[in-house]
Amino acid sequence: MTPRRAEIIAIGSELLEPWRLETNGSHLSRRLGEIGVPIRFRTIVGDDPADIMNAFRVALGRSELVVATGGLGPTVDDLTREAVAELLGLPLLDDPEVAAGIEERFRRRGYAMPPSNRRQAQVPRGATVLKNALGTAPGLFLRVGEQAIVLLPGVPSEMRRMFDEEALPLLGRADERYIYRILKIAGLTESEVDHRLTEVARQAGEVVWTILAAPGQVEIHLKERVTGGGAPVGIARLDAAAAAVLGPDLFGRDDDAMETVVGRLLVERRESLAIGESLTGGLIASRITGPPGASRYVAGGVVSYTDAAKTRVLGVRAETLQTHGAVSAETALEMATGARRLLGTNWGVSATGYAGPEAGDPQAPAGTVHLGIAGPNLATTRRLNVPGDRDVVRSRAAQSALDLLRRALLGAMS
Amino acid sequence: MTPRRAEIIAIGSELLEPWRLETNGSHLSRRLGEIGVPIRFRTIVGDDPADIMNAFRVALGRSELVVATGGLGPTVDDLTREAVAELLGLPLLDDPEVAAGIEERFRRRGYAMPPSNRRQAQVPRGATVLKNALGTAPGLFLRVGEQAIVLLPGVPSEMRRMFDEEALPLLGRADERYIYRILKIAGLTESEVDHRLTEVARQAGEVVWTILAAPGQVEIHLKERVTGGGAPVGIARLDAAAAAVLGPDLFGRDDDAMETVVGRLLVERRESLAIGESLTGGLIASRITGPPGASRYVAGGVVSYTDAAKTRVLGVRAETLQTHGAVSAETALEMATGARRLLGTNWGVSATGYAGPEAGDPQAPAGTVHLGIAGPNLATTRRLNVPGDRDVVRSRAAQSALDLLRRALLGAMS
Repeated sequence: MTPRRAEIIAIGSELLEPWRLETNGSHLSRRLGEIGVPIRFRTIVGDDPADIMNAFRVALGRSELVVATGGLGPTVDDLTREAVAELLGLPLLDDPEVAAGIEERFRRRGYAMPPSNRRQAQVPRGATVLKNALGTAPGLFLRVGEQAIVLLPGVPSEMRRMFDEEALPLLGRADERYIYRILKIAGLTESEVDHRLTEVARQAGEVVWTILAAPGQVEIHLKERVTGGGAPVGIARLDAAAAAVLGPDLFGRDDDAMETVVGRLLVERRESLAIGESLTGGLIASRITGPPGASRYVAGGVVSYTDAAKTRVLGVRAETLQTHGAVSAETALEMATGARRLLGTNWGVSATGYAGPEAGDPQAPAGTVHLGIAGPNLATTRRLNVPGDRDVVRSRAAQSALDLLRRALLGAMS
Repeated sequence: MTPRRAEIIAIGSELLEPWRLETNGSHLSRRLGEIGVPIRFRTIVGDDPADIMNAFRVALGRSELVVATGGLGPTVDDLTREAVAELLGLPLLDDPEVAAGIEERFRRRGYAMPPSNRRQAQVPRGATVLKNALGTAPGLFLRVGEQAIVLLPGVPSEMRRMFDEEALPLLGRADERYIYRILKIAGLTESEVDHRLTEVARQAGEVVWTILAAPGQVEIHLKERVTGGGAPVGIARLDAAAAAVLGPDLFGRDDDAMETVVGRLLVERRESLAIGESLTGGLIASRITGPPGASRYVAGGVVSYTDAAKTRVLGVRAETLQTHGAVSAETALEMATGARRLLGTNWGVSATGYAGPEAGDPQAPAGTVHLGIAGPNLATTRRLNVPGDRDVVRSRAAQSALDLLRRALLGAMS
C-alpha cells in the first residue's frame, strides 16, 4: 500500500504548552517525503480521550495514512491505544508475546515489571505490533479498509527507529519520491519577487512552487515528484528560468546563507575583509565569522557605538561627524575605508544607522541605515529605510550589508 | 466573550516540510493561557484552499475560538482570507481605509504599491480589521455566532504585536487564568540544577514544574492556575525557595536575557563596557547591543580575528602571543584590558579560543575558550572546555563571557 496523503498527530498535553516545540513531525515528514507521501495536515492534541478520538476521526475523514506519536507509555496520561481502539470499535486483547517482551526488558535491567506496564501489552484486535528496540512502549500498525494508522511512541529516538525499521517496510516503497530545492533571493520584497517570477511560476507544472519571506531574504521552495532514479528535470528548468530573470538578486540555493556565499567569493579571490559597524553592533562580524574557515578571509572588525569610537578607532574625521552626522553616507564610507585601512584588508564593509526604538533625527528616523563598501577599486554607499522593530532593523541592515558586499565582489553593483 | 477552548491553525505548506518548525503557536499558547483559555488543538495545514477550509470547518466544530496564522500576504499562495470567507459564505469587500493604509506604507518607503497587495485590502463582510503595525498584511477578527476567528499574519514579529495589541482586547478576560514564570539559571548543567532543586521541586504541589535546557542556560518553567485577581502564591513560594538555593546562579526571570541583565547592572552603576573578542567574532558585542538603549553603556568593541588585529588594535603584546599563544588566559586578559583602554570604558570583556571544526593545538583542542574581564578593581580570566560544534562553542562562549561579566558586576565572582 502506498498512501497518497498522510496526516501526523502528536499526542501530549505538554506539546500544547508555550515552552514545547513538537519536533517528531520533521522526521516523519522527511521519511514520508522520501517515499513520495505528502503530509497534508499535522495536529497536536492533549492527553484527553475525547480530544484524541476527535483527532483520529477527523484524520481518517481526510487522509489515507495517519501517523501518531505519543501516549503509548504506561502512565494514566497515556491514552492513545484505548482511544483508537474505542473509535474503531476494536476490543483490546492481551498479547502474551508483547507482555513477555516487556517483562524480559525489565528483568534484564534487574527490575520486576511494574503492574502499570501491563497495559502496554494490550493490542487492538487485528493490529500488527511494531517492536520498540529502545524502550518498553510497543507501536501499533492498523489497517482500516484502504487506510492505515501507525501509532508510535513520543520519545524521539524510539519513534525514529521504530518508524524507519518497523513501520516504513509495511508502507511499501513507492517508485516515486520528492526532490527539494530552495532558491534564495536578496534585495527584493516578496511581492517584487512574485511579480518578477509570475511567468516562471506559471510554467511550474507539476513542480510545487512556494514563495516564502524569511528575514532579509525571499525564498522559492521547489518540490518535484520523480519516479525511479529519475532526475528532477522540472526543478532544473525552473531554476534556470528563475536565475535568468533574477540575475544577481538570486544569491544562493538550499543551505547557502548570505555569509557562506560571501565567504566563498572571498576565498575564490583570496581577498580579505574588515568590518566597521555601529547600529548592527557586531552582527555583521558575527555572521561572516560563523562558517568554518572564516579566519581565511576575515581579519576582524570594529564595533563603534559612539562618535569617539568612530574617530579614535576607525579614523572617521570629526569634521565628517560634525557636518553630516554619525548616520550619513559620508560616515558610512569613512567607516568602511577606516576598517579596511586599520586591518590592512582588501575590503571594508560598514553599517551605521538608527536601530530604534529611539527616534533618530529629523532627516533620519529610526530604521534609517547607511551601508558602505570600500574595495580595491570601489568606494560606494547605500541608504536603506527599514520598517520594523529594533531586531528587524539590525538584522536587515546586516543582511543588506553582506548582500552589498556580495554584489561588489561579483562586480554587479546595480 | 471569553472562549472556553481555543484551537490554533498554522497555515503554510512550508510548515509541513521537514526543515520548518512552527513557532508562532508558543506565543499564542502563552497569551491565551494568561487569559485562562486553554489550547486544545493545534493544526498545521498547507496552502491548499480545500485543506484550509477543512481545517477551519473542523476547528469550528470543536473549539470556541480559532486563531490562525499565515496566508494573509499578497502572493498567490496566500489563501486564508478567501478560504475563510468562502467557508462562512461571506462576500469579500474592498476596504478603502485598509487599501489607503497599505498604499501609504509603500509610499513612505518610496515604492508604488504592487497590484498584488490590493488583495490584502479585501475584508469579509462584518469582519473587524486588525492593524498591522509592522507589515502590510492586516489581520481579521470575525464573530461566528458564539464563536470567534482571529486571522493573523505568519511573520512572527507582526503576529505577536497584532495579537497582543489588537486581538487580545477583543477576547475579554476570564475569571480563571494561568500565571507563568520562568527561572533562568547559568553556570550549571541540567542535572546539576535538577539535583540542587530536588527538595524545592517536591513542594511544587499544584504548580506545574518543568525543567528545560536551553543553549547556555537551564530554565525552570512554572505554571499556576489562579482565580479572580488572585496572586500566584505557589509560584512566589517556589521562586523564593529556588532563589535561596541557587544564589547568583539564578540570573533572571521570564523575558530576561543575559544581555538585558548585564545591561541593567551597567545602567544602575552608570558604567560602560568595551568588548575584545576573537572566536565569538562579534557575537558578544551583537548580544550586548541588542536591547534598546544599549548605547548608554556600550562604547564599542573589537573583533580581532588575527594576531595582527590583536596587537595592532587591542594592543596585545607580541611577546604574549609568542609565549602563551592566541588562545591563552594571558591573551584573554590583555584583550579585555586593551578593549577597556582603547575605548576608555569602566569594563572590558574578552573571549579567545578555538571554535572548531579545525583542531586547535595539542594543549587546547577545539572547544577551548579563555574569557577575560578587566574592571575598575578587577582583572580575571576563566577557562572553558565546551563540547559541541562550532555554533555551540561560539554561543556558549558568548553566553559565558556575559555571565562572567554579570558576576563581576555583582561582586559575586565564585
